[in-house]
Amino acid sequence: MPTTRIILDTDPGADDALAILLMLASPEIKLEALTTVHGNVTLDKTTRNALALLEFMQEKNIPVAQGCSVPLVKPPHQAQGEVVHGASGMGRTNLPGPKTQTIKAHAVDYLIERFLAEPKELTLFAIGPLTNVALAIRQEPKFAECVKELVIMGGAIRSGGNMSPLAEFNISEDPHAAHIVFNSGIPITLIPLDATYKCLLTYADIERLNKTDSPIARFVRDVTADYMEFYLKYEGFAGCALHDPLTVAAVIAPELLSLESHYVDVDISGGVSTGKTYADFMKVAKKPANIKVALDVKGREFVELFIKRMENLAKQ
Amino acid sequence: MPTTRIILDTDPGADDALAILLMLASPEIKLEALTTVHGNVTLDKTTRNALALLEFMQEKNIPVAQGCSVPLVKPPHQAQGEVVHGASGMGRTNLPGPKTQTIKAHAVDYLIERFLAEPKELTLFAIGPLTNVALAIRQEPKFAECVKELVIMGGAIRSGGNMSPLAEFNISEDPHAAHIVFNSGIPITLIPLDATYKCLLTYADIERLNKTDSPIARFVRDVTADYMEFYLKYEGFAGCALHDPLTVAAVIAPELLSLESHYVDVDISGGVSTGKTYADFMKVAKKPANIKVALDVKGREFVELFIKRMENLAKQ
Amino acid sequence: MPTTRIILDTDPGADDALAILLMLASPEIKLEALTTVHGNVTLDKTTRNALALLEFMQEKNIPVAQGCSVPLVKPPHQAQGEVVHGASGMGRTNLPGPKTQTIKAHAVDYLIERFLAEPKELTLFAIGPLTNVALAIRQEPKFAECVKELVIMGGAIRSGGNMSPLAEFNISEDPHAAHIVFNSGIPITLIPLDATYKCLLTYADIERLNKTDSPIARFVRDVTADYMEFYLKYEGFAGCALHDPLTVAAVIAPELLSLESHYVDVDISGGVSTGKTYADFMKVAKKPANIKVALDVKGREFVELFIKRMENLAKQ
Amino acid sequence: MPTTRIILDTDPGADDALAILLMLASPEIKLEALTTVHGNVTLDKTTRNALALLEFMQEKNIPVAQGCSVPLVKPPHQAQGEVVHGASGMGRTNLPGPKTQTIKAHAVDYLIERFLAEPKELTLFAIGPLTNVALAIRQEPKFAECVKELVIMGGAIRSGGNMSPLAEFNISEDPHAAHIVFNSGIPITLIPLDATYKCLLTYADIERLNKTDSPIARFVRDVTADYMEFYLKYEGFAGCALHDPLTVAAVIAPELLSLESHYVDVDISGGVSTGKTYADFMKVAKKPANIKVALDVKGREFVELFIKRMENLAKQ
Repeated sequence: MPTTRIILDTDPGADDALAILLMLASPEIKLEALTTVHGNVTLDKTTRNALALLEFMQEKNIPVAQGCSVPLVKPPHQAQGEVVHGASGMGRTNLPGPKTQTIKAHAVDYLIERFLAEPKELTLFAIGPLTNVALAIRQEPKFAECVKELVIMGGAIRSGGNMSPLAEFNISEDPHAAHIVFNSGIPITLIPLDATYKCLLTYADIERLNKTDSPIARFVRDVTADYMEFYLKYEGFAGCALHDPLTVAAVIAPELLSLESHYVDVDISGGVSTGKTYADFMKVAKKPANIKVALDVKGREFVELFIKRMENLAKQ
Repeated sequence: MPTTRIILDTDPGADDALAILLMLASPEIKLEALTTVHGNVTLDKTTRNALALLEFMQEKNIPVAQGCSVPLVKPPHQAQGEVVHGASGMGRTNLPGPKTQTIKAHAVDYLIERFLAEPKELTLFAIGPLTNVALAIRQEPKFAECVKELVIMGGAIRSGGNMSPLAEFNISEDPHAAHIVFNSGIPITLIPLDATYKCLLTYADIERLNKTDSPIARFVRDVTADYMEFYLKYEGFAGCALHDPLTVAAVIAPELLSLESHYVDVDISGGVSTGKTYADFMKVAKKPANIKVALDVKGREFVELFIKRMENLAKQ
Repeated sequence: MPTTRIILDTDPGADDALAILLMLASPEIKLEALTTVHGNVTLDKTTRNALALLEFMQEKNIPVAQGCSVPLVKPPHQAQGEVVHGASGMGRTNLPGPKTQTIKAHAVDYLIERFLAEPKELTLFAIGPLTNVALAIRQEPKFAECVKELVIMGGAIRSGGNMSPLAEFNISEDPHAAHIVFNSGIPITLIPLDATYKCLLTYADIERLNKTDSPIARFVRDVTADYMEFYLKYEGFAGCALHDPLTVAAVIAPELLSLESHYVDVDISGGVSTGKTYADFMKVAKKPANIKVALDVKGREFVELFIKRMENLAKQ
Repeated sequence: MPTTRIILDTDPGADDALAILLMLASPEIKLEALTTVHGNVTLDKTTRNALALLEFMQEKNIPVAQGCSVPLVKPPHQAQGEVVHGASGMGRTNLPGPKTQTIKAHAVDYLIERFLAEPKELTLFAIGPLTNVALAIRQEPKFAECVKELVIMGGAIRSGGNMSPLAEFNISEDPHAAHIVFNSGIPITLIPLDATYKCLLTYADIERLNKTDSPIARFVRDVTADYMEFYLKYEGFAGCALHDPLTVAAVIAPELLSLESHYVDVDISGGVSTGKTYADFMKVAKKPANIKVALDVKGREFVELFIKRMENLAKQ
C-alpha cells in the first residue's frame, strides 16, 4: 500500500494532539504539514500547541501555517474549550514554548498552493472547525477538485449532539463553513460522534500505556487528564472519547469503520437545529450521496490499535 | 387492569383505520369518541372515513366530532396522501357512504368539554397532525392538566424522516402544533418512525389473515393494498409499516416498546430541519424530560399481536 | 352614513382604553362587544380593565368575552407592558373592581358565533396581539368570509420597530397569529407605527382637556400618565402616541389617512426580523394586494379630533 | 481638499461602468485599482468588462485583480442580471475584447496587501456583492482597521427591496458577506435604494449628453439602453437609477446626501427577510451606530452633476 500523504488542519486540543501522535506513529501515513484554526482554544494557542508538539516529537520538517481566528459567519463560541482541554488546550502537559515559527503564508493560501501544485495527490484531514477549508474553496474554485480525499471529524447523525441537542462541536462552531465544504464536490469521509463515542480511552488504558515509562506515555496521560475529568464530571463515564484520532482509522484501519454513503448536509438556518449534521437515510431529498459517513465502529479494537501504536512510538 | 378510556384524534388514512380496528379489538380499551383532523387526506374525507368505518364495525355509540381542515401556521402539504392511502384515504376498500353524521360540536370544543368534564380520567390518542390538540391547549389553559396521558404517533428521532431528511409526516404537517403540544405539560408517550418502521405487515400476513374469509380480513387487505404498493415502489420492501396501530401497544403491550424519557421538541425554525423531532440525549439543553419516546420495539411480536387481534375480531 | 357596528378585540392597556372611549364618543360607531386578549398586560388584567372601563362609562349592554392568555406559538413576552401601561395596565387611574362579569363563551367561540350569525354585517377591530382572531379563523373556515372588514393596529412598515429594530409590539407579540390573519382573505385596514407615531397627545393637550374638569378628562390624564413618562424617558418626546385610537379614524375620519393597497405579510422565520410587517412596494413577490395600510396621517388633525370627541364625551 | 485614493470592488454591470466613468471624471478622486466580483453577471464577464472599460478609457495604470466567483454561503442567484445589464453585462456597448490582463494576485490577497501596506490611507468602494471584502476581513484580522473608509452601494432601509419585498440585490446576493462587513468595525457609508431610486437618468438626459457627439456619450447611451428598457417594462418609469454612481457623491458631493448614523445590519436568518438591510431607528437593540446611511438625496442635483462630469469627460 502506498503511503498516504496528509495535510492536517487542526485546533490542538487534547484529542488533536493524540491524532497527530497517531499519524506520526503510523507508517501508512506521511504527515506533510499542519494548518491551524480556531476551535478548542483560541488560534494563538492552537498554533503554539501545534509548534510545541512537533518540537516535542522532534519533527523538524513539518511546516505549520496559521489560519483563521474566528468562524466564517457566526460569532465564536464562548469556549468551554478550556474546561475540556485545559487552559492551554493541552491539558496538564507542560511543553516548553516553541522555538520554531509558523511559515509566512496564511493557512488558506498555503492549502491552495499545496493542493493546486499536486492535484489529487494529497489527502486533507480536518479535525477542527472547517473555516480554513471553506475559505480555500471559496477563494480558489479549483481547490476542491485538487483534493484527493478529505477526512473530517465532526457531526452527530443518529447520536445526540454535544453542543446542542442536535449539534456536534466542530460543525456547530462553523456551520456555514461545513455547509460550503460538504457541498464542494470534494470526496469526503466523515467521522461523527456516532462512531467516536464508542472509542473510549480509559484510566486503565492510560496506566497500561504508562508501564512503558516514556515521555510519550506521560504526554498521553497529561494531555488527557483534564479531558477525562470533564467526561467523568459531565458525561458520567471514566474515560475520554478518541474523537480526532479515530479519523486516522480511515487510512490505517478502515475495516473497523461501518461506512455508508449518504447525502449529508448541515443546518445553517439559524434555528434550534443550526449545526445539525444530517443524513438523508430515506433519500427523500433525491440528492446524490456526497459523503461516506462512519455510523459505527469496532470501538474497543480501535482503542487497542491506538494504544499499540503509542507503545511503539514510546519505544522509538 | 382497568379499561383505558380513549378519545382518538385521527385522520383516516389506512393505518388510522387499522389503529381503530385494533382498539375495537382490544378488551383493555374503551374507545369513547373520535375527533377528525386534516392529514393523510382532506378533512371531509377523513371525517367521512371515520363515520363509514364505525358503521362498518356497527359501532353506534362512538360519536365523531369534526376538527380542523388546515395546519395551524404552515400551508397544507400538497398531499402525496392519496398516493399512499388511495384516493379516498381508505385504499381499495369500498365502504358505503355513511348514514350517520358528526356531532354538532367542533372537535376542539368537544375535546375541551370532555377532558374538563372528567379531569385525568381520559387518555388522548393523536395519530394525525396535532392541530386539534394544539388549539384545545391554546383556547383552554386548563385542558392540558385534565389529560391523563397523550399517546402520539409521530416524529423520527434517530431514524431518517419520511417527508424531509429529518422530518416525519404527522409532525412536519403541523410542526407548530406539535411544538405547542410537546411543551404543554401533558404526559406524553411518543411512537416515532424509529419504532414503527420495525412493525412491517407483509403480504404473507395479509394472506394468513384472509384464511378467516371474513369482512374484517378483506377490509385489512383492501385498506392496505395501495399502501403496500407504495412501500414496494418507493421504499423497497414488501409490506407496510403499522405506524398508527403501534400506538395501541402503549396500552395493550407496553412491554414490547423500549421507552426512554427525554427532553423532546420540534424544530419550527422554517429552515431545512423544520419538523424535526429531536431528543436531547446528552442533556445539553439542561431541560427536564417531557416525553417518553419509543426508540425501539419488538416489531415482529407486535405484528403477531396485531394479526391475532384481527383474527379474533373477524370471528366475532 | 350608516352606523358601523363594531366588535373590538382588545388588551387594555392605556391606549386601548382611549380607543374604547373614542368609539363610545363617536356617533358613527356602535360598539357591540369586546373580546379580550393577552398583550399589554396579562389576560386577567386586560379582562378586568375592559369590564371596569365599561362600568365607568355606564355601558351596560356591551358584553365582554375573555380570550386567549398566551400567544399561539411563541412564549409570551416578559412584558415591559407594566412599565408603559402601569402595573394594572390602566396607568394611574384607579377604577373600582368591576361588578360585572364576562359572558360564559370563550372569545374565540363568541367571535365565530357573532360573525357567522350576521355575515358581512359586522366590522372587527383588533388592537392587541391577534391570537383570538387567528384561532377563530383556524377553527371555523367560514369565519374569514363573514367579517365585513378588519381594522388592525400593528406593524411598522417604513418606520423602525418598537420591540426590535424591525418589529412592532402587537404583531411581534404573536407573529404567527398575524401571519394567519393577514393571509385569511379578510379585507384588512392596517394602522402601523408609520401613522400612529405622528399622532402625539401632548401634556398641553391633557391640560387643555382638563379645563372641562370632568371624570373623563381626569381619566384620560391618569391613564396616560405612566405612558407619557415612558415616552419622555425612553423615546425622548413629551407626549404619547395614540396608537390604538388612530384605528377609529378608519371609520370616523378616513380622509386623514394616506392608505395604500399592498401585499403585506409578517416574518415568522424565527430570525432577527421575526415580527417584521412588510409591504411589497415593488411587487417583486408578484402577489395581489391583501391589505390597505396607512403609511401616513394628518397627525395633528387626528389629535384635535380626538380631543374634541373627548370634550364632547366629558360634557355628556 | 486632498485627493481621495480609491480601490474599487465592482461587478460591471451598466451602472458600475457609469460609476467608474464618474470616478475617472472626478479630479477629487484617484482610482488606484479595481477588484472584480461575481454579481450583475458572471465573474468572467465582470472581469472582462472591467479590463475592456479601462482600455476604452485609455487607463493603463489601473491594475485589475479578479476575485470571487460565487457568494460566500448561498447559491448564486439565477441571474436576471443579463436582462437588466445585457448579455455581456455592458448593455449594447460593443467594446473590443481586452488586450490587457488581470494581475496575478487574487482580489482578496490584493486587497489585504494594499490596505495593510498603507494603513488608513486608502478608501474602499464596494458596488457589487461583498464577497471579496468579507473574505479579506476573515482571512486577515488586521484588514478592517487598515481601511480608511468603505463606501457601499446596497440595501433598502425604508424603501422596498428589488429582489424580494425586503431585500436589495447587492446585499441579498451575499447577505452573509454583508453581515461580516457591517460588523467589522470599518467606518462605512451606505448608499441604499432609498437614495439611489431618486437619481433617475432619463432619455432626455441621454439625448442631451449625446449632443456632445463623443465616444463617451455614446457609451453612456449604449450601456444604459437595456437597463432603461428594463426599468420601463418592469418598474414603470422612463429612466434608470444611478445606483452605483451615487456612491461617488460621498466624495464629490456629500452635501447632496442626507446621511444618518444608525446601527445597521443584515438579516441572514434564511427566512423571508433574508438579505433585508435594516436600521435600528428607535435604538431598541441598544447597539452603537456602525454605519452612516444615505436615507435621502437631492436626486436631480446629483443627476445634473453626473451629466456635467460626463460632458467634461467627453470633451477631454
